[in-house]
Amino acid sequence: MPIPELKLIERIRRMAGILAPAPGKPVVVRGIGDDCAVLRLGAGSDTLVTTDLSIEGVHFRRDWYPAGFIGRQCLTRGLSDVAAMGGEPVAFFLSLALPPKTSQTWVDAFFRGMLAHALEFNVALSGGDISTSTSGVVADIMVIGRVPAGKAVLRSGAKPGDGLYVTGMLGVAAARVAALRAGKKVEVASAQPTPRVRVGRRLIGVASAMIDTSDGLSTDLKHLCDESGVGAIVYAPALPAPAGLDFALHGGEDYELLFTAPARKKVPSKIAGVPISRIGEITRGFARKDKPIWLADPRGRMHRLKPQGWQHFSG
Amino acid sequence: MPIPELKLIERIRRMAGILAPAPGKPVVVRGIGDDCAVLRLGAGSDTLVTTDLSIEGVHFRRDWYPAGFIGRQCLTRGLSDVAAMGGEPVAFFLSLALPPKTSQTWVDAFFRGMLAHALEFNVALSGGDISTSTSGVVADIMVIGRVPAGKAVLRSGAKPGDGLYVTGMLGVAAARVAALRAGKKVEVASAQPTPRVRVGRRLIGVASAMIDTSDGLSTDLKHLCDESGVGAIVYAPALPAPAGLDFALHGGEDYELLFTAPARKKVPSKIAGVPISRIGEITRGFARKDKPIWLADPRGRMHRLKPQGWQHFSG
Repeated sequence: MPIPELKLIERIRRMAGILAPAPGKPVVVRGIGDDCAVLRLGAGSDTLVTTDLSIEGVHFRRDWYPAGFIGRQCLTRGLSDVAAMGGEPVAFFLSLALPPKTSQTWVDAFFRGMLAHALEFNVALSGGDISTSTSGVVADIMVIGRVPAGKAVLRSGAKPGDGLYVTGMLGVAAARVAALRAGKKVEVASAQPTPRVRVGRRLIGVASAMIDTSDGLSTDLKHLCDESGVGAIVYAPALPAPAGLDFALHGGEDYELLFTAPARKKVPSKIAGVPISRIGEITRGFARKDKPIWLADPRGRMHRLKPQGWQHFSG
Repeated sequence: MPIPELKLIERIRRMAGILAPAPGKPVVVRGIGDDCAVLRLGAGSDTLVTTDLSIEGVHFRRDWYPAGFIGRQCLTRGLSDVAAMGGEPVAFFLSLALPPKTSQTWVDAFFRGMLAHALEFNVALSGGDISTSTSGVVADIMVIGRVPAGKAVLRSGAKPGDGLYVTGMLGVAAARVAALRAGKKVEVASAQPTPRVRVGRRLIGVASAMIDTSDGLSTDLKHLCDESGVGAIVYAPALPAPAGLDFALHGGEDYELLFTAPARKKVPSKIAGVPISRIGEITRGFARKDKPIWLADPRGRMHRLKPQGWQHFSG
């Protein structure tokens, strides 16, 4: 990818930090750098906000997926971010730019996929914006959620000694993309991921830190460790990896929840029907600046696990 | 414009209405169809949400405006929507897609313009998303605001007999675009519009309905009248039209506030330093389906005023 996204986000974060209004308006409990922003707008509950861009030719291809699949997936990305904070999604917004020649059939199917998914999670399409696009379809989804005040599960709460857990299976979506890229015929609809909203809500009071696996385990675990200032060990044999280790480690778009919990917390092996795997643990690392993430292979040998998260399709 | 945007929005609204979860979650006080959505997420105050897409080649041209101007304008559009509900903006989010070759200088200047504007209105950049674009720059801004519970000024509150008012001057931005289109050299920065946030907040309890003039008076007045189920008369000589009547009637991007107020309310001629003009009145119209908008010319003759709002630059 020609644009170093992480570097740009860091840069924006610094600029925003320098220029942002510090005191007097303490509504932004958590700004840039988590799955959602956390705003305190009223008493009793905190408000979660997340935005996710889906761009044709970068995040999806119209010749790979039916319109309804794409519409649903755009919303999944936002719902999953709310799930990763332990929140309940309540409303969503869509900014949509369409090429002039987009057929009404495609647009209707896109919305049907999206709105059926919204109904499933009891979240209303509450606004947005519409425009012409000068190239492909661009959909920016914003999901608003809520969580009891002060209870949002951040990325930054992991402590050395915490267990590391993941919901469901890893690498399934990336294996599908690899098959599509190789020109194979794939039945895409059956394997579409489900955002783990119910699991996320049940993890309030259990999880010390949480993130969703949208970019792939190795990348998302790095985010969580960076925000928490910790290292980690992942046990390769413990990974729920039906499509193999590589896809499980680096494949994105599974929208599972990756979370940590203190050793004293009992984490069930299944929550809301979704299997939970203990895949590793959080470590202190060697020094302030050296918090490595290790992968223990089946023979017990340790390898550095570098973030190699799934690159969104980029032409 | 090849895509009939209004028709598409109506279509989405219907689909969302059919599929949206009706009972059990009364947090969406006002969904699609106003300047902002209104959510009731906590006690005491309501939450406003607005999203605005800005697309290179549709909404702006990089060769017409400096990067800082564009960055500022993207945010203005959202702040103005919050102002049009009487709200206080509290946080904003940016989804930004950049062509691979965008220079760091351009991006930095874009952010400086945007973040200085944010500082001016005490609103923090709290998150967003970053992606590669396959064509031009795409910026989707989301602004979160708040307003005392139940006090948001909707588009739907205008009553026959109400006065019709507008803040500031109309047609200035469109006159500038016309000059740029004609190849003239224009000093753009000096005339950049300011969202009327302070005026909007002062109009709570005064205005019965409100909208911002982002698409042009004739189009935005039509929106307001449609939502309120009323007609209107606009007095041409009363329009604050420094660039002429045509630009004032149909020119967009002024980001002034167009509002109505009951005859018994005293509307000051200036609020927070911004002049307020009484430009017409709200009428009952002839029948349920016939709520015409009239323009009274300087000789007192009446003409039908059709929505001819400024078409965003479309290639």
